Amino acid sequence: MERRPVSLLEWAYQEIRQMLFSGRLAPGEKIVVGQLAEKLSISPTPVKEALNRLVAEGLLDAMPRRGFQVKHLSAKEVHDILDCRLMMEVFAARKAVENFKRHPEIRKEMLADLKELENVEFHDYVEATRLEQSYHSSFIRLTENQHLMNLYNILFGVGFSFYVYASENHPMERHSEAQSEHRQMLEALDRGDVEGLETALRSHLERTINLYETFSSAFAAETLHN
Amino acid sequence: MERRPVSLLEWAYQEIRQMLFSGRLAPGEKIVVGQLAEKLSISPTPVKEALNRLVAEGLLDAMPRRGFQVKHLSAKEVHDILDCRLMMEVFAARKAVENFKRHPEIRKEMLADLKELENVEFHDYVEATRLEQSYHSSFIRLTENQHLMNLYNILFGVGFSFYVYASENHPMERHSEAQSEHRQMLEALDRGDVEGLETALRSHLERTINLYETFSSAFAAETLHN
Repeated sequence: MERRPVSLLEWAYQEIRQMLFSGRLAPGEKIVVGQLAEKLSISPTPVKEALNRLVAEGLLDAMPRRGFQVKHLSAKEVHDILDCRLMMEVFAARKAVENFKRHPEIRKEMLADLKELENVEFHDYVEATRLEQSYHSSFIRLTENQHLMNLYNILFGVGFSFYVYASENHPMERHSEAQSEHRQMLEALDRGDVEGLETALRSHLERTINLYETFSSAFAAETLHN
Repeated sequence: MERRPVSLLEWAYQEIRQMLFSGRLAPGEKIVVGQLAEKLSISPTPVKEALNRLVAEGLLDAMPRRGFQVKHLSAKEVHDILDCRLMMEVFAARKAVENFKRHPEIRKEMLADLKELENVEFHDYVEATRLEQSYHSSFIRLTENQHLMNLYNILFGVGFSFYVYASENHPMERHSEAQSEHRQMLEALDRGDVEGLETALRSHLERTINLYETFSSAFAAETLHN
């Protein structure tokens, strides 16, 4: 159910993103525009437009005269994406602290995300990753920099399938450890503690990078969700 | 003249970007797909696909059922874009220094850009801005992080028209000062001096932000290049 009418292009774009994030379109898979349009019960034009937007965002490769292919991330690319996230989130910390008092609605959303992250069905890794994106994007939204937000969304989109995979493959302890790190970030915001927030973000993301190193060869070798 | 065959979409995308950067499509201008396709002597489909890619990159707004419009940057947005550039280029400095010796071809290109920047026709602000992008993107390319490069290109594209405008409105002294800052960056790379490079990048971009503050009201008030 859509809450408000959106264009067919916008709708197709969201649907295809969801298919990518949930693994229904898997890394390396070829996309035939006509078939996908049939599956979505709309004409090929908005489907093609949505696919081109996803090319610009780095989720698909366009193959001249041969359609589209779902990107397969190498181990190095996953590392590079996480490096970019570290750059953006740590950069955001100072402004997030400065602007925090002005955005009680964001604090409310962060608390709701934390609660949902605690209660999310253990095996629903797509929903857990969506909640993680929502929580972490709060720091970026707090900067009030729309262009940073745009870059962040593009980057998170490219890494999404990996985050789902990583979430599936974390040892159990990591999930509760990550939750406690999430809480520390909100506490740092509440105290107005820039260094505390930077440290919490940095160690959270560095632990993700380290954990990922332990299963990166497995990640690179297999095709996800298929 | 294209050096190698590209798809019609890719060609249209490059042509329209060039029209945006050179002010032939001005901020706030409405784009009628049919007219643009006629001007480019190709069919509307690749034109529309290219326009959607430019929407994803933030250079155009899509208006549901009413086509496209060239984005007009507010003073705050220009500031935010420059903040993001500062974030990326300063983040890149450490890895750029680490990897510099492995990329003699990039050093060669940087020297060529510097020389061209000195010789570029004083009034050719589009070409000067293209050279500035090429020079600054060297630091990002040196990180060997393709995802950072992608984000950087998207961001530089969004700010391009502003950089052309800023370049036109700089006082003369600023142009030679900027050149000397550009040279300092390369010298820092040659010395393997991370802090020196960070400082040079930071002060170069902070001066751009300050200078821009002095004419931001004029920038926000008028429509560029029209």
